[in-house]
Amino acid sequence: MSDWYEIDKPASTIELDDRGLQYGDGLFETIAIRRGEPRLWDYHYERLARGCRALALVTPAVKVLRARLDAALANSDCDPLFCIAKIILTAGVSQRGYGRNLPSEPRIFVGVFPAAPVKRSSYVQGVATILCETRLATRSPLAGLKTLNRLEQVLARSECLPTGAFEGLTLDADGRLVCGTMSNVFIVKDNVVRTPSLERCGVDGTMRRHLLTLLESTELSCEVCDIAASDLGEADEVFLTNSQMGAIPVNRCGDHAWPVGPVTKRVLDLLANNGILECRQ
Amino acid sequence: MSDWYEIDKPASTIELDDRGLQYGDGLFETIAIRRGEPRLWDYHYERLARGCRALALVTPAVKVLRARLDAALANSDCDPLFCIAKIILTAGVSQRGYGRNLPSEPRIFVGVFPAAPVKRSSYVQGVATILCETRLATRSPLAGLKTLNRLEQVLARSECLPTGAFEGLTLDADGRLVCGTMSNVFIVKDNVVRTPSLERCGVDGTMRRHLLTLLESTELSCEVCDIAASDLGEADEVFLTNSQMGAIPVNRCGDHAWPVGPVTKRVLDLLANNGILECRQ
Repeated sequence: MSDWYEIDKPASTIELDDRGLQYGDGLFETIAIRRGEPRLWDYHYERLARGCRALALVTPAVKVLRARLDAALANSDCDPLFCIAKIILTAGVSQRGYGRNLPSEPRIFVGVFPAAPVKRSSYVQGVATILCETRLATRSPLAGLKTLNRLEQVLARSECLPTGAFEGLTLDADGRLVCGTMSNVFIVKDNVVRTPSLERCGVDGTMRRHLLTLLESTELSCEVCDIAASDLGEADEVFLTNSQMGAIPVNRCGDHAWPVGPVTKRVLDLLANNGILECRQ
Repeated sequence: MSDWYEIDKPASTIELDDRGLQYGDGLFETIAIRRGEPRLWDYHYERLARGCRALALVTPAVKVLRARLDAALANSDCDPLFCIAKIILTAGVSQRGYGRNLPSEPRIFVGVFPAAPVKRSSYVQGVATILCETRLATRSPLAGLKTLNRLEQVLARSECLPTGAFEGLTLDADGRLVCGTMSNVFIVKDNVVRTPSLERCGVDGTMRRHLLTLLESTELSCEVCDIAASDLGEADEVFLTNSQMGAIPVNRCGDHAWPVGPVTKRVLDLLANNGILECRQ
């Protein structure tokens, strides 16, 4: 069950006239709560602020947002040592029609949910993935952002579920690798770590950013660049990142299989030593 | 004020957990109610059914949907001679995460709103438009459909509002003309009527379809094709179509100006003679 709050008060519904429902006019963040604290909070807030600028929503002050989050956590029955918080911002109710006066003051909802930890074996042996047939529209004005317009991810994820695969990898309309339905993807080739550019589509994940920042202080080479679907098949190692899970090795995608290789193990160690305890080996 | 109904009962809110809010996982139709009847009902239903197939929602039977619409109209205080009905289908509440079991039974909401008629002078003298800076992502798996993911239209329309222009025209990321924020666009050159292909993005409007069908039985040439932004500047005439308004001449877009020309006048006559009374001249 989920608990939702708006300004410290329990909430379970939203107006049908709210633009969040009518047009997906809003943003969200899904945040790992660990030991009572929102993990990678700065990165979540920064992405939300970027989204507010793109959507011409007034960016909530960081103190206000954090107070709402803390109040929701205090009110929820979920275990604050290990749960999930979801912040939803909507543009609220306005006149009918697509347009609204800019900038708009957003409504802020905070939900708290129990978290289901990923099996230890997934970190050790890796997980299976599929390549989704759903392809992402390209050169989106909303590339990188976590808006309430997520139908492409819904379609891709719904392809993935019946296969039993842990995750579905998605290509853009030009056949470039972009991300997983709920994760970012990294490939390793000749000891160089690469992750797709998210300039045209995809979601700029907070764990991806955390890892990219951490990698800067190591001797591992890392590139953010365009990655063709064929590069995936030729990779030495593949892994995913996600705010709840940290990094998880991929052992398969369709006909391709990969070992859980040395670079992936170093990445898991790096994260484990920098606040992402799930990645301890 | 708006009236919303779910299964004949007044409704004003929806669960925060509904996928319609969480992901924009749903569809909508905005239907002109004229003389108590939903205008172009077959085309609206057909597009909704196409959307259901794309989103793996169970398509509501046409009789069920029509009964819901009729019940909402009967319950509403709006004038059934001239108002607007909006049908929203959402994928409902399911487990957390993007994926859902396919196909899903949709929830159906019907809203009824007063309609604001377009000024007579707009049909006679035409309306001013702007070219929006917001560009549409291209090769969307949802091209042509009217889903609840409408942020691009929100951004484009919100650009348009402060300029006072009647409508904003949008290009795709490749610079092709696609549609207006709430309308489809047609250009006339050397007596040939052209409207953009909607294979890659944009919404396949019901009035556009009505007009394209009607044009087949006239001697006017009409093409659905790719249209460059430069073709707009070189057009002899430009007009818009929209389910509520029929067809409306465009007299300006940025530095370009057009007369309300003879082909546009014939189009308005054609629509006026085929159920779209707003277009009477």
